[in-house]
Amino acid sequence: MVEDAPQSGEDRLIARYFRPLATHPGAFGLTDDAATFTPPPGCDVVLKTDAIVGGIHFFADDPPSLIAKKALRVNLSDLAVKGARPAGFLLSLALPATVDAIWLEAFARGLGEDAQAYGCPLMGGDTDRTDGPLTVAIAAFGTLPTGSMVRRSGARVGERVVVTGTIGDAALGLYLRHDPQTAARWRLDPEQSAHLVGRYLLPQPRNALASALRQHASAAMDVSDGLAGDLGKLCAVSGVRADIEVERVPLSQAARTAVAAEPSLIETALTGGDDYEVLATVAPGAMPGLAAAAQAAGVALTEIGTVRAEGRGANFLDRAGNALLFKQPSFSHF
Amino acid sequence: MVEDAPQSGEDRLIARYFRPLATHPGAFGLTDDAATFTPPPGCDVVLKTDAIVGGIHFFADDPPSLIAKKALRVNLSDLAVKGARPAGFLLSLALPATVDAIWLEAFARGLGEDAQAYGCPLMGGDTDRTDGPLTVAIAAFGTLPTGSMVRRSGARVGERVVVTGTIGDAALGLYLRHDPQTAARWRLDPEQSAHLVGRYLLPQPRNALASALRQHASAAMDVSDGLAGDLGKLCAVSGVRADIEVERVPLSQAARTAVAAEPSLIETALTGGDDYEVLATVAPGAMPGLAAAAQAAGVALTEIGTVRAEGRGANFLDRAGNALLFKQPSFSHF
Repeated sequence: MVEDAPQSGEDRLIARYFRPLATHPGAFGLTDDAATFTPPPGCDVVLKTDAIVGGIHFFADDPPSLIAKKALRVNLSDLAVKGARPAGFLLSLALPATVDAIWLEAFARGLGEDAQAYGCPLMGGDTDRTDGPLTVAIAAFGTLPTGSMVRRSGARVGERVVVTGTIGDAALGLYLRHDPQTAARWRLDPEQSAHLVGRYLLPQPRNALASALRQHASAAMDVSDGLAGDLGKLCAVSGVRADIEVERVPLSQAARTAVAAEPSLIETALTGGDDYEVLATVAPGAMPGLAAAAQAAGVALTEIGTVRAEGRGANFLDRAGNALLFKQPSFSHF
Repeated sequence: MVEDAPQSGEDRLIARYFRPLATHPGAFGLTDDAATFTPPPGCDVVLKTDAIVGGIHFFADDPPSLIAKKALRVNLSDLAVKGARPAGFLLSLALPATVDAIWLEAFARGLGEDAQAYGCPLMGGDTDRTDGPLTVAIAAFGTLPTGSMVRRSGARVGERVVVTGTIGDAALGLYLRHDPQTAARWRLDPEQSAHLVGRYLLPQPRNALASALRQHASAAMDVSDGLAGDLGKLCAVSGVRADIEVERVPLSQAARTAVAAEPSLIETALTGGDDYEVLATVAPGAMPGLAAAAQAAGVALTEIGTVRAEGRGANFLDRAGNALLFKQPSFSHF
């Protein structure tokens, strides 16, 4: 006789920690093989997957609730810049044997908080053992009116280049997370140091701007692999060249302090990645509309340059008008 | 100056191996942050994620093309049993440093062959380094008429319990893959041995039956964690009890030979998992329709028992009518 389900350890784990997050009726409380979702009429589904791996994207001893939130937010950030409204996500979790109930509970709690905050419920998942580092692969999906996804390829000559928030915090925060001693060399006070580490640990995706980007931006992407490299990609697929005034790139007070102490850190800030801010191009006439939406959402929006000409690539110009040369313009795992 | 994309190693890897698989226009040749997909009017989207981890679900030295196909097929199998038509998939790949170009090329080739064969194109992905084993997380999605997903919970008293194909081959094949010497003990000839290992390496999802299951089955799931445990889950969520005649459970010639040599292997066959066959309940009047569809698709369909009563759980009855007691009815990672 095969008794009642849930029976296996895997089933119990799912029932205990993850079922409470599966609030969408189409997730069937995680008791079926798959989830089902009825898109609103006239809508496209936007799909994205991004994984984070222990030792690569986070530290094994980072707070589990923040690991969970980062895993979801790096995907939410992509939905935001494409103009999509989050609808749900699938979770694939590879767990090393060191992960215990306390860790899992905190992980699930963090994930649940963000699922609720962003209106993006857990729709299904898979939990496996691994002999390697903890790996969290999330596939998120959202919806938007058919054909309205904001592409990377829409930038046109004469448009403004804008970013949200501040750039480079997370890349500097990663250094500090590796070696807290760095704070003294960069002349950071504890609050500044905590700000930068916090920006590394917990991205702030700009989902509040999704519909405004659909309305006002000609092209958009999120800054995840470094502003310089990401803008280079946007320019390449748009077939344009952009000039950026480095002085206008918004830096936090903490990042400014670090760059003042070590001027070469400007390259880290511009190329380091993990910003999860919006990078967009906007026709001059659409700027007021986007600026107003950003203000209403409480998100800083800064014009940093101009789409100059047909072509490819991006120039980062210093005060004298000289283009910076970066050793590695973009983060890459390979 | 930030030059043309693709520039980074990661971009080159994606462009070279995976862009050719992104044949759907909404995948934008993998040059955007996300994919977009317009569901057919009146359709639901069915979503599923399943990952496979090196050392757990496959061996590091398994042929890379088969690892790729297994990773996709375990997801396609879920779409099949839910009655959904595959529409596309997202790939999240965590690669150890040992993976080289030859490996990647074979992996991508296998994946591309199945993407084409099952009409399930690559829509997007993410590629990361890992210090651990190779991990392939796939999120697949499909479509079906709104509200028509075949649930696990629809089994009713008096219905027939059916399975496709043969049960237990993959679980026995896993033993042989671990230790080829076992073949002699089980008195298998080389062809039988190869059959069982092949069934472990490469599932045969029953996507050809998706629409027939929607039409004729009251409940369905795929057998991935072992027939006994999986039927137990189906019965539990349906609120029924099923009686299975063990003698009627279809075994391949190879599995029959092994069980004849070692009768206790029947438990391995019934509980071992990785079958990726359809398990369904069907009202007596709907049996001829499903049988005809299975025959037309060239898929064996076998009646193995009956839904007996309200309740929970499944009995596996031997020739004398006694219920088998399983040490572990279902595969579990935890």
